[in-house]
Amino acid sequence: MKTTARELAGYLGAELIGDPGAAIAGFAAPETAAAEDLIYIDSPRFAKRAVASAAQCVLSIRGLEYPGKTVLVTERPKFCFAKAAAWLFPPEPAHPGIHHSAVVALSANISVNAAVGPCAVIEEGVEIGEGTQIGALCSIGRGSKVGRNCRLYPRVTLYPGTKLGNGVIVHSGAVIGSDGFGYVFGEGRHWKFPQIGTVEIADDVEIGANTTIDRGSLGATVVGSGAKIDNLVQIAHNVQLGANSIVAGLSGISGSSTVGAGTVVAAQVGIGDHCTVGEGVTVGARTGILPGKIVRDGEKISGFPSRSMERFKEQQGWVGRLPELAARVKKLEKENADRK
Amino acid sequence: MKTTARELAGYLGAELIGDPGAAIAGFAAPETAAAEDLIYIDSPRFAKRAVASAAQCVLSIRGLEYPGKTVLVTERPKFCFAKAAAWLFPPEPAHPGIHHSAVVALSANISVNAAVGPCAVIEEGVEIGEGTQIGALCSIGRGSKVGRNCRLYPRVTLYPGTKLGNGVIVHSGAVIGSDGFGYVFGEGRHWKFPQIGTVEIADDVEIGANTTIDRGSLGATVVGSGAKIDNLVQIAHNVQLGANSIVAGLSGISGSSTVGAGTVVAAQVGIGDHCTVGEGVTVGARTGILPGKIVRDGEKISGFPSRSMERFKEQQGWVGRLPELAARVKKLEKENADRK
Amino acid sequence: MKTTARELAGYLGAELIGDPGAAIAGFAAPETAAAEDLIYIDSPRFAKRAVASAAQCVLSIRGLEYPGKTVLVTERPKFCFAKAAAWLFPPEPAHPGIHHSAVVALSANISVNAAVGPCAVIEEGVEIGEGTQIGALCSIGRGSKVGRNCRLYPRVTLYPGTKLGNGVIVHSGAVIGSDGFGYVFGEGRHWKFPQIGTVEIADDVEIGANTTIDRGSLGATVVGSGAKIDNLVQIAHNVQLGANSIVAGLSGISGSSTVGAGTVVAAQVGIGDHCTVGEGVTVGARTGILPGKIVRDGEKISGFPSRSMERFKEQQGWVGRLPELAARVKKLEKENADRK
Repeated sequence: MKTTARELAGYLGAELIGDPGAAIAGFAAPETAAAEDLIYIDSPRFAKRAVASAAQCVLSIRGLEYPGKTVLVTERPKFCFAKAAAWLFPPEPAHPGIHHSAVVALSANISVNAAVGPCAVIEEGVEIGEGTQIGALCSIGRGSKVGRNCRLYPRVTLYPGTKLGNGVIVHSGAVIGSDGFGYVFGEGRHWKFPQIGTVEIADDVEIGANTTIDRGSLGATVVGSGAKIDNLVQIAHNVQLGANSIVAGLSGISGSSTVGAGTVVAAQVGIGDHCTVGEGVTVGARTGILPGKIVRDGEKISGFPSRSMERFKEQQGWVGRLPELAARVKKLEKENADRK
Repeated sequence: MKTTARELAGYLGAELIGDPGAAIAGFAAPETAAAEDLIYIDSPRFAKRAVASAAQCVLSIRGLEYPGKTVLVTERPKFCFAKAAAWLFPPEPAHPGIHHSAVVALSANISVNAAVGPCAVIEEGVEIGEGTQIGALCSIGRGSKVGRNCRLYPRVTLYPGTKLGNGVIVHSGAVIGSDGFGYVFGEGRHWKFPQIGTVEIADDVEIGANTTIDRGSLGATVVGSGAKIDNLVQIAHNVQLGANSIVAGLSGISGSSTVGAGTVVAAQVGIGDHCTVGEGVTVGARTGILPGKIVRDGEKISGFPSRSMERFKEQQGWVGRLPELAARVKKLEKENADRK
Repeated sequence: MKTTARELAGYLGAELIGDPGAAIAGFAAPETAAAEDLIYIDSPRFAKRAVASAAQCVLSIRGLEYPGKTVLVTERPKFCFAKAAAWLFPPEPAHPGIHHSAVVALSANISVNAAVGPCAVIEEGVEIGEGTQIGALCSIGRGSKVGRNCRLYPRVTLYPGTKLGNGVIVHSGAVIGSDGFGYVFGEGRHWKFPQIGTVEIADDVEIGANTTIDRGSLGATVVGSGAKIDNLVQIAHNVQLGANSIVAGLSGISGSSTVGAGTVVAAQVGIGDHCTVGEGVTVGARTGILPGKIVRDGEKISGFPSRSMERFKEQQGWVGRLPELAARVKKLEKENADRK
């Protein structure tokens, strides 16, 4: 699609300086932008990059100069850039239809407006909503329900009985609904604890490549609406992940833990089982939260075992100076010995 | 299947209190149970949940009261619950046969009682034992051997020459037999060290979703019988993983390391190369074991670098109080200075 | 293939001691070698293993005795072993042709010398170079370009527009070109930042099983020639990974970070976003590098937050003795109190 600076400024509620008719047809970084690409600048340090850019239109914070360019002034250029992109380039619609190489059970109920890619396998009783795209080589297990306008990239697995809401994006290689990891040892071997629960993924969730989300053992594993999960994340059985939460790459959330709405879990974090992490919590990268721990709403934590970020930094500062602290203790010991 | 409280009590060796004819047809958590679901209670704190449950039968430790319910008394309710589930609901048998969309080499030897799902690809010389289910979209490489009663969920890869015993479960996205990560640098580039060994997975092993197990470089990578491996685990070339060991999610075991029988490796652990971890060891979550290290049978370790759990906790306690310790040293310094 | 000790010594520039006509037909570890397998010994401690081996030929450092065996003497036996294997066993050539079950767009341009495996899906405008093998069940997105002599093992995904150079190896389950993980929060929800950049993988790169490499958000994610990436690694959007760099399993490199040529990133490392890691850096296992950090060429770092390996070891030594240090402080306090 294509728009003009005036139209876009109107949509974004941005102040327009310059040519209202300037065309906007794409989005780019200043260095690689063409004339009709929109760029954004959210810090005075980067203004020079926009000045030197071929782009004609800049989304910018107030007070910066871009000679000869058309400027859309806003307090949040990056946010407006993302919003503009979603407006100009909505997700490509499905080319409705079922590829002849897909293997679809007779009892599957697939919307006529949905698309099923080559060699996808869709089992009995599956429901696929309108506008949804099932990529090539996906495996959709018996009785799974996928809502409207979802996009499953190629090579996604849904185990039987998995439920996805509307507008869910699942990247390639993700596995949803696999058995939880639970055993009871006895009589010389591990007995599998029943893994017969479900997985429910709410609307507008995005799930990264090769991420795994286990089904509940008895109850449900739940991912709240608008949650965003990065690549290679492990979500264990019976986890309750809050709405609009964020979980970055290589993090793991252990069985039966709850993570509140709007909480941000950075990369390579581990959350032990049966934790209760509140709403709006910030969990720093590589934090390890011990099993059963309760983290209150709004806390910012880091380290292993986890503590407040402030406290973590202070302690790590001292760890960094431990050799010097030890030397000071040694000196004191010498002083005391000399005094005897 | 369906049974009665009397039959189940007999199978489990549990004491029966209440109605011997009470029907048991499923397994559930107290909150979501229907009348014929079995529930279990292994702590007095949870007894109330059972009392309030719709379930008629409770597997429970001794000494708790469940008015109006039938109780199966045992010392290990959770274990009995798992054992009962395995008895009442054995793994679904395969629907024998090869799906017409599967691509199977003529030289593959597939039991008439095995099942091969849609779009599975089975190369030359593969052997598949009776009762085994190969899920949709699996890739079984040349000469691989899969034993009896195995279940490969959709989208599993076995590289050529991989061997699985009997009763092995492999979850979706797992890759077994990929090249180990070994190079020798010279003449300005990395030369691939030969990765021509094998992988042998013994009986009753379970392998999680998107887990990777590399083949041996020259010898074999071996996973012992009854071992259970979670999602997103990396097992490197030539690792020897002991029988009935447990490896939780996002852990990695580096090349040529040995992990003894019955050892439990918690989540996000890293074991360096050429380590020897004994039998019955407990490796706490997020532990990092340095290359070449020897961990004795039965040890409980934690931290990075790893040390005894007790020692780790003591040290972390002191790390937590480092700012205060430093303040105490400062005070001593001041006292000594004042005294001069 | 098969060669003689004389031919191989000539190729490697090794000194030959013994029977020049001794046959070499394979590569093995001393314990499992057959007579015609080559073995290597790079330390006097292991010489006994070679003496006891059935192998007739040993690649060895100077000065060791192997009675009755033919010895190829070199300073770098392991390197020569790898080089000899690459010479004797070059990658198996493709059996050219497109499997009848593959789904290939009419506009795809596939070399007549390339091979496309069963149930592979190749979209519009894809180019596949000569000698390249696309494994079974791969998904090659619209407009992707794969060079010559590449090998994609089964079940690899390339998102649309991905570019691979020549001689690239991609292991099963890897996903290249997935959307980066970028959102901007506003108006009550996360807005997807545009993920419309590209991925460029240079020549001779090897990518491990179930590894994920995201496309650039606006620019490109770039993996330099000869880089080697292990299993379950996450490479985020806009990362620039240098030539001949090494990234071991379960490591993650966050958005827009640069890693210099020849740098070695060990296992379970996390590199924050916008870092600049120099050339020839050694990043120890489980290191965590804070966002925005600059690591100079040739540094050796470890710990979280990262510091020099030497410093890390010294500090960890003190952490290990913290309980004792605290006891010493307590003793000093008592001495001072007694003195008052």
